[in-house]
Amino acid sequence: MAFRFDLQHEDKETAARLGTMHTPHGVVPTPVFMPVGTQATVKTLAPRDLRDVGATMVLANTYHLYLRPGADLIAEMGGLHQFMAWDSPILTDSGGFQVFSLSNLRRITDDGVAFRSHVDGSEHLFTPEKVIRLQEQLGADIIMCFDECAPPLDYEYNKRALERTHRWAERCQAAQTRQDQALFGIVQGGVFPDLRRQSAEFIGSLDFPGIAIGGLSVGESKADMHRMLEELEPFLPRHKPRYLMGVGAPEDLLEAVARGMDMFDCVLPTRIARNGGVFAREGRLNLRNAQYARDPRPIEETCGCYTCRNFSRAYLRHLVQAKEILAYHLNSIHNLYFLLQLMAAARKAIADGTFASFKEEFLDGYRTTDEDARARNREARGKNIAKRGLITEL
Amino acid sequence: MAFRFDLQHEDKETAARLGTMHTPHGVVPTPVFMPVGTQATVKTLAPRDLRDVGATMVLANTYHLYLRPGADLIAEMGGLHQFMAWDSPILTDSGGFQVFSLSNLRRITDDGVAFRSHVDGSEHLFTPEKVIRLQEQLGADIIMCFDECAPPLDYEYNKRALERTHRWAERCQAAQTRQDQALFGIVQGGVFPDLRRQSAEFIGSLDFPGIAIGGLSVGESKADMHRMLEELEPFLPRHKPRYLMGVGAPEDLLEAVARGMDMFDCVLPTRIARNGGVFAREGRLNLRNAQYARDPRPIEETCGCYTCRNFSRAYLRHLVQAKEILAYHLNSIHNLYFLLQLMAAARKAIADGTFASFKEEFLDGYRTTDEDARARNREARGKNIAKRGLITEL
Repeated sequence: MAFRFDLQHEDKETAARLGTMHTPHGVVPTPVFMPVGTQATVKTLAPRDLRDVGATMVLANTYHLYLRPGADLIAEMGGLHQFMAWDSPILTDSGGFQVFSLSNLRRITDDGVAFRSHVDGSEHLFTPEKVIRLQEQLGADIIMCFDECAPPLDYEYNKRALERTHRWAERCQAAQTRQDQALFGIVQGGVFPDLRRQSAEFIGSLDFPGIAIGGLSVGESKADMHRMLEELEPFLPRHKPRYLMGVGAPEDLLEAVARGMDMFDCVLPTRIARNGGVFAREGRLNLRNAQYARDPRPIEETCGCYTCRNFSRAYLRHLVQAKEILAYHLNSIHNLYFLLQLMAAARKAIADGTFASFKEEFLDGYRTTDEDARARNREARGKNIAKRGLITEL
Repeated sequence: MAFRFDLQHEDKETAARLGTMHTPHGVVPTPVFMPVGTQATVKTLAPRDLRDVGATMVLANTYHLYLRPGADLIAEMGGLHQFMAWDSPILTDSGGFQVFSLSNLRRITDDGVAFRSHVDGSEHLFTPEKVIRLQEQLGADIIMCFDECAPPLDYEYNKRALERTHRWAERCQAAQTRQDQALFGIVQGGVFPDLRRQSAEFIGSLDFPGIAIGGLSVGESKADMHRMLEELEPFLPRHKPRYLMGVGAPEDLLEAVARGMDMFDCVLPTRIARNGGVFAREGRLNLRNAQYARDPRPIEETCGCYTCRNFSRAYLRHLVQAKEILAYHLNSIHNLYFLLQLMAAARKAIADGTFASFKEEFLDGYRTTDEDARARNREARGKNIAKRGLITEL
């Protein structure tokens, strides 16, 4: 089955869109948030738990799976869906973001990127062709072009990186051999409207079945991110899904949906869960706080997730304090359920023509803190992305 | 509802027994294996997972829960069943084993045991009266007497410790105020038949609703353990459940059932799971081994657990190697399912009058290794129990 995106409804007051993606492993209503299963597992959750929280599609990381256990091994085991026992849609990224943020970069050339594994220090080369071959071995429903993720505020760097990213997009398209996978192009260009526009026009011209926006949510301000999305929107093909990479905070999701974005992924909900951070209607709670020690209420009284239906904040705090793995599991269940319900509510509001007021009402009640923003930036940036000025670019 | 034990059938060829325990939170067929939920969670598993693997009753540790989050807090939250969202039967131990094996012991007197917390080094005193009060706050269906767990091979030590354990049993009985909890006595006496007999007769005379055997599986040989159980069996009340504490290897469970034991608990299945160890019909497998890297088979072809129905050894090995929490979760599910199915099969064999041949057939096919035995001993002993010769006994 070929990939298809049906645009079903466009909001009148905002740029929000309602759609459906058809993939070989099932149908995905958009806007959609995709939980991240970096190493072929959404951390602490089994596939039955993912279904239970309402996940329709998950993301896995080509960079990690290439290093361990190897894309050839996964292919031999029947592909990623069978390997991780998730027979619903999967998206794999290209490894572009990871080689720039996680690995020890060695050399960037027009050919590709040489890097050292963060696992064992071994040397590797990613080229557009190699990254497509790896993703074809993994067998996800949606695969991504190899791109260069540049520091968002350096114009000259972004200009050079964009040129490379565009050449790599053409090479990825040429390298694709499987017809059952949808290859998405990636728009880059930092926080610079002229570069973003140029990139959207070029990537749009290549006729990919979907378009991703890379290089945002990596340290720039919220205002910059919003401005970029507004600049870009008119230049993005209307009848193709638009995937804003690496965004997963509730407030960011709604702001991006309002600016015409359809797909999202982020480690945020599962990562903060492992540190005792949980989403609530009024903002993020930190279950480590002593105030929850004797709190008999669930995280959210009205939440329908397994965690809220069964456990008190007091119990969850105890598990967090005792470093019990069940804390990570139960908090991850809640956070993913919260985001997936938020997206379901957003879809309903778009269908009903009430998205603008739905978004305002949610944001009015949802407190974001500096701590949240700092954590989000830290997480999104990854370990090394801030050091990239030091990297040898050839 | 008061506690009741129905002895339904006694095997003709062995001392195996089939029974049913009736508790305020439900009925438990015996012989039964109880997964250990030390800190009010069976590690990595939610209650729904525990039901799914067939658990009917779980154990929690008074020592751990007293230190964190506190028995008063759990009482305030409605008791242990509500706190951990497990509305089926629970047994709490008395903390006796833990103060001797985990904490930094300060002083043992006839009054009780002074110790320092392994969590924060704070000083505490456990007396029989205090331990009963804590267990009444926790609210389990079955609670245990406070006992002194002596090094199994030291006759003089065991003789003195036994005297104390018997006085403490009387004091525990006198201290009990709740009528909805069944208080079990504990038989001690190391590897010495005369002490074990003396203890069984004394504890039996106190008319507890159940009898536990403590101080075995703590470093003595398998032959010693079997001999002790055989010596003890004729002296144990026939119509009361017999609980062999701390035993959970498949071969040990069947040998103990054959010697008249009805209840068991052990951290073994969940602890080895977190190190990649999984039970199989032919013996324990270590999923870290490279031989499983490309093995598409489940742990066991015929196993009906969630893990075996969905995942290959190759996937599980990948998760173990990548230190993914899902490995601990999925391996724990399999190991508990394996043991609980083994106990269900044992109950059926006792009912059918085929237990002796069932046991022989299982043990013929099940390879135990020195590594297994060493790991089991290490685990059962706990951290400090071997050092107890150094402890100030007053």
